[in-house]
Amino acid sequence: MMGAGQLARMSHQAAISLGIPLRILAADATDSAALVSPTIDIGDPGSAADLRRFATGCEIVTFDHELVDLDALAELEHAGTVIARPSAAALAFATDKAHQRTRFAHRGLPLPRHRIVADAATALAAAEELGWPAVVKTARGGYDGRGVWIVADADAAQAVLTTLTDADGVLPTVIVEEAVRIERELAVVVVRGAQGTTVSYPVTETVQVDGICRETITPARVSPEVAAEATRIAEAAAEVAGAVGLIAVELFYDGTDITINEVATRPHNSAHWSIEGAVTSQFENHLRAVADLPLGDTATRAPVVVSANILGHADGRDPADHLGAALAVRGAAVHLYGKGPRPGRKLGHVTVLADTIDDARSRARSAVARLGDPVPEVSQ
Amino acid sequence: MMGAGQLARMSHQAAISLGIPLRILAADATDSAALVSPTIDIGDPGSAADLRRFATGCEIVTFDHELVDLDALAELEHAGTVIARPSAAALAFATDKAHQRTRFAHRGLPLPRHRIVADAATALAAAEELGWPAVVKTARGGYDGRGVWIVADADAAQAVLTTLTDADGVLPTVIVEEAVRIERELAVVVVRGAQGTTVSYPVTETVQVDGICRETITPARVSPEVAAEATRIAEAAAEVAGAVGLIAVELFYDGTDITINEVATRPHNSAHWSIEGAVTSQFENHLRAVADLPLGDTATRAPVVVSANILGHADGRDPADHLGAALAVRGAAVHLYGKGPRPGRKLGHVTVLADTIDDARSRARSAVARLGDPVPEVSQ
Repeated sequence: MMGAGQLARMSHQAAISLGIPLRILAADATDSAALVSPTIDIGDPGSAADLRRFATGCEIVTFDHELVDLDALAELEHAGTVIARPSAAALAFATDKAHQRTRFAHRGLPLPRHRIVADAATALAAAEELGWPAVVKTARGGYDGRGVWIVADADAAQAVLTTLTDADGVLPTVIVEEAVRIERELAVVVVRGAQGTTVSYPVTETVQVDGICRETITPARVSPEVAAEATRIAEAAAEVAGAVGLIAVELFYDGTDITINEVATRPHNSAHWSIEGAVTSQFENHLRAVADLPLGDTATRAPVVVSANILGHADGRDPADHLGAALAVRGAAVHLYGKGPRPGRKLGHVTVLADTIDDARSRARSAVARLGDPVPEVSQ
Repeated sequence: MMGAGQLARMSHQAAISLGIPLRILAADATDSAALVSPTIDIGDPGSAADLRRFATGCEIVTFDHELVDLDALAELEHAGTVIARPSAAALAFATDKAHQRTRFAHRGLPLPRHRIVADAATALAAAEELGWPAVVKTARGGYDGRGVWIVADADAAQAVLTTLTDADGVLPTVIVEEAVRIERELAVVVVRGAQGTTVSYPVTETVQVDGICRETITPARVSPEVAAEATRIAEAAAEVAGAVGLIAVELFYDGTDITINEVATRPHNSAHWSIEGAVTSQFENHLRAVADLPLGDTATRAPVVVSANILGHADGRDPADHLGAALAVRGAAVHLYGKGPRPGRKLGHVTVLADTIDDARSRARSAVARLGDPVPEVSQ
């Protein structure tokens, strides 16, 4: 696995159960996964040399993040030196929102109205046409709310576009899209096996604040028809993505229609609930898919599963110092990632299984508030 | 944690979630836990020097097995150099079945009728008095059926006693006891916190073949009254044991009465089901207790939880080569310990949660039969 963040850390836990030897490429010996695994190489998957050295020692490679030298990876794949799951092509798809949009549109999948543009004048015209407020997104490199701006008017849009323009006056490709009225943000995590078989987790509702996922509720509070439609769209999107392993499809639901927001081809924050809450966790299912093993049951283990992220508290507290207080919350499964505390940084998560959303949510939030930044009261 | 077997391996998985830095003392770099943890020291906890070196680098020490130099440990404890949970005194209790019997009897806890003896003539007289067949057990060093003999008559008893007698003609302390008619073997795993608070897992039924646990069924197939009585006896036994952490109390149920078989003061095979099957796994609860954190909920997550051990198949197959076949069994949570395959060796376990015993059992057994020695059809 290239990358040693919390996704690799939790993948390591799953690999231990299965007895799968998981080698991890870490940028640093203090990375989240590097702290808990003995089979660590130090290097940068964004460097062709490091990627080659690491990949040639592996039977199959997979990824904790997408910041990978895709040319070097594709070269190794084509030479038959390594099996990459997802493939370099699938990673390229996942890391380019503009490309995603074009392919999804071609397949007839529902998207917010949008324009893909590469100069400021066209971007402004597109926003005028789509209506204010508009959303500006960079095609590459955004995550956790970075690389996405909601702009109220032409002046605000111009300010963002100016910031994005480089010293040579070149604007990177951006997507300008309508600001969809969001009733619920949904995520469907699809597992696609090496032979193309797929299973999907129940639809999860993600509660986002400033573009960062603060909480997930599974199953999502939508009708069975909406859940079925979300799953259908996500499975079609996963097929377009063509990745082996997990494909997390983030969706907007405006109360009537579902549109695709974006796609990631790796384990995903929106399915951390599955560690305790599903028969098979997303991390085990990712490993099963990548290792060409039968996929596991994705059913939930309780009527409601809520996970809440532990973001670093503004007071700089280390959640490790408050573990006892959090574990005093009944049924709170606490996951700490071993990362240094910084305000706003994802340091862990808490999962609670319960019979009702209110119960699960209040316990998960109570534990989180002891460890980090409290989950804001949102209208949802 | 001293010792790096599968209990340490699964403790490491639990420690990762909690962010607790778990250092492990392994006899060998290929030990089950050493394969998956980066914080390994090589050494033998049975050696005073190794134990001292390891323990002085730890804030708190705990144990994967009991083969520990107890004098060296007690010395470090008394000097205030280390906190041992369980303490050397509790470990001494757990490793001496004769001492256990005496203390339990003093407390009025129910035991099979027995005599503690240290010479062959007295042993034979005791067996005659208790009736044939009788059971002969060494007070120390027995596990997984080793150190226990059921003897049909005086000749068979004499043969065992002769084998046990050393070159100087000295018989180690043995327990001679009645062969209890066993309707069910039960186990209750009690978690005892650093401040003396306790929680207990639901009563588990263990299916033993030749003294080796092949399968566990939780909750046990006994009446609520019998379960309550088993829990009462186990909690009293745990208090006598005085250990901090997990205390596994193995019990006999003859259809009328419950008697104590033996006690272990560490995570235990009879509660591996708790990883998926309980709100808090035994491994997490052991760490919580040892680290003086609040104890976790021990309730089950399903009506029935069955775990079956993977013992090495006579054909020498490596379960890792048959993982796909086992994972094809719906809902089978497979745990492989990374140990070299040898016939009869515990190489892993499989857990299934279900609504009925028959369903859980048939799926767990089906997965196990693909990986190792099939669980024999027993009358239970």
